[in-house]
Amino acid sequence: MTEANRDDRERANCDIVVVDDGRAFALPDEVAVEEQLEIRLATPARTTQLAVTMRTPGNDRELAAGFLFSEGIVRSAGEIVRIDEGSEARNGSKISFVRVAVNVDPGETTSRLERHFFASSACGVCGKTDMEAVVLGKIVERRDGPRIDAAALYELPQRLAAAQGVFAATGGLHAAALFTPAGECLAVREDVGRHNALDKLIGWALLDGRIPLHEAIVMVSGRASFELVQKCSMAEAPVLCAVSAPSSMAVSFARRLGLTLVGFLRGRRFNVYAGAERIVTDED
Amino acid sequence: MTEANRDDRERANCDIVVVDDGRAFALPDEVAVEEQLEIRLATPARTTQLAVTMRTPGNDRELAAGFLFSEGIVRSAGEIVRIDEGSEARNGSKISFVRVAVNVDPGETTSRLERHFFASSACGVCGKTDMEAVVLGKIVERRDGPRIDAAALYELPQRLAAAQGVFAATGGLHAAALFTPAGECLAVREDVGRHNALDKLIGWALLDGRIPLHEAIVMVSGRASFELVQKCSMAEAPVLCAVSAPSSMAVSFARRLGLTLVGFLRGRRFNVYAGAERIVTDED
Repeated sequence: MTEANRDDRERANCDIVVVDDGRAFALPDEVAVEEQLEIRLATPARTTQLAVTMRTPGNDRELAAGFLFSEGIVRSAGEIVRIDEGSEARNGSKISFVRVAVNVDPGETTSRLERHFFASSACGVCGKTDMEAVVLGKIVERRDGPRIDAAALYELPQRLAAAQGVFAATGGLHAAALFTPAGECLAVREDVGRHNALDKLIGWALLDGRIPLHEAIVMVSGRASFELVQKCSMAEAPVLCAVSAPSSMAVSFARRLGLTLVGFLRGRRFNVYAGAERIVTDED
Repeated sequence: MTEANRDDRERANCDIVVVDDGRAFALPDEVAVEEQLEIRLATPARTTQLAVTMRTPGNDRELAAGFLFSEGIVRSAGEIVRIDEGSEARNGSKISFVRVAVNVDPGETTSRLERHFFASSACGVCGKTDMEAVVLGKIVERRDGPRIDAAALYELPQRLAAAQGVFAATGGLHAAALFTPAGECLAVREDVGRHNALDKLIGWALLDGRIPLHEAIVMVSGRASFELVQKCSMAEAPVLCAVSAPSSMAVSFARRLGLTLVGFLRGRRFNVYAGAERIVTDED
């Protein structure tokens, strides 16, 4: 069964005007919700506000855990003591937060933080001082991992769309999903930000005791940026598939890290940009 | 004539394996380049590194100028004294930078910076301390601006694709374009990051003496996040059209700021999420 993530707060009613071939009419519609979330890290010594992200509400605990893990600030589920959600009034607005309490020595936390300082709904490099600081981290060279039948990959976009539901699949939200090598969908997470969707997925896996994801395929609904490759690498997921194009840096990172990177996965066709040795075709 | 932005550095050769209905074959391909760029601000007193962005090379001067302008750090073209591009070796890598020298008092620069501190290829809220700091800025309430014939909007996606070129239009790059109310394409800019594409477009307009963009339509190839609405608002562009969906915050910002926000612009149909009074249909 696919781990569901339906949340009424992910969409908002919105009256719109539809213009169709010269005719205009008012219609009630829905849009994906985008709201601020503060991610805080609490050590025995102090609480630090780590990130302000624009995210779609829902699965916020997973988002915070996945963000901290894929940024290298939390290194295992065992380091997380508790996760609290809440909100505060500030300047007349309600600001949501997630506070992740960890049993990590404050000095160690500080040194991890120096390399990973800011985040956003759509990026993880903000504030990082150079590219090497981004490349390094809990990244392992892996040339092993599952062999995957090309025919199993053909099915993934449809299965992703089915798991997303009509609203998200029409373009309202980015999705990240976890599949078995046989193509079974284990979980799907959605967000207006593609990085948040993957952080939610990785956070779910972390809190569910499933990391490292050695036998998993991660599938994303849009493009593959280098940061999605990096997040997969942190979770030790060996295969990343995207519906659209990867960037040059996504390709070079995937090759350096031993990940299989598939793009333009549509119909019975796809491109393999890195790690083609894990893909098995009829000819093999 | 459309302002062109072709740059050989925007794409990189990449050998891939194509899997098509069970057959696998190697093929030379191209991917969109994603590389680091540092944006530096120089006042008479000091040079500050403001942002590290992952961008597609090309139009870097415009990107830096547009970023500084849409973040409210530079308020007019007259504040820019000169723009230098260069690169430095660091940790064995070549790091590109753009240095924007301004004739702004350092104290004034500092106070502007306090509100707008970090940026990335895909976000502008990183490091900002609360939402109000993001909402405020050089944003004006405008209920005027051009009346736009719905039929002119129908043509924009095709014209955008034509201006982008085959490579980008196949999904390799986000695009942002400036159109006249009659639908003439004035300029198009592309990037792996949607915010960078719009910053490049706004930077071009700024350096070309075209801001405020009171009589312009901005068209983007993907979704409309609230930050794209904000950037349009800073440039005083009254109409933003997107091929895909807007987020809830994009809609609420557009309504608050008096912008016209069009989404799902496809074929002879689109949705108007805000500012419908600027759209003229056959029935009017």
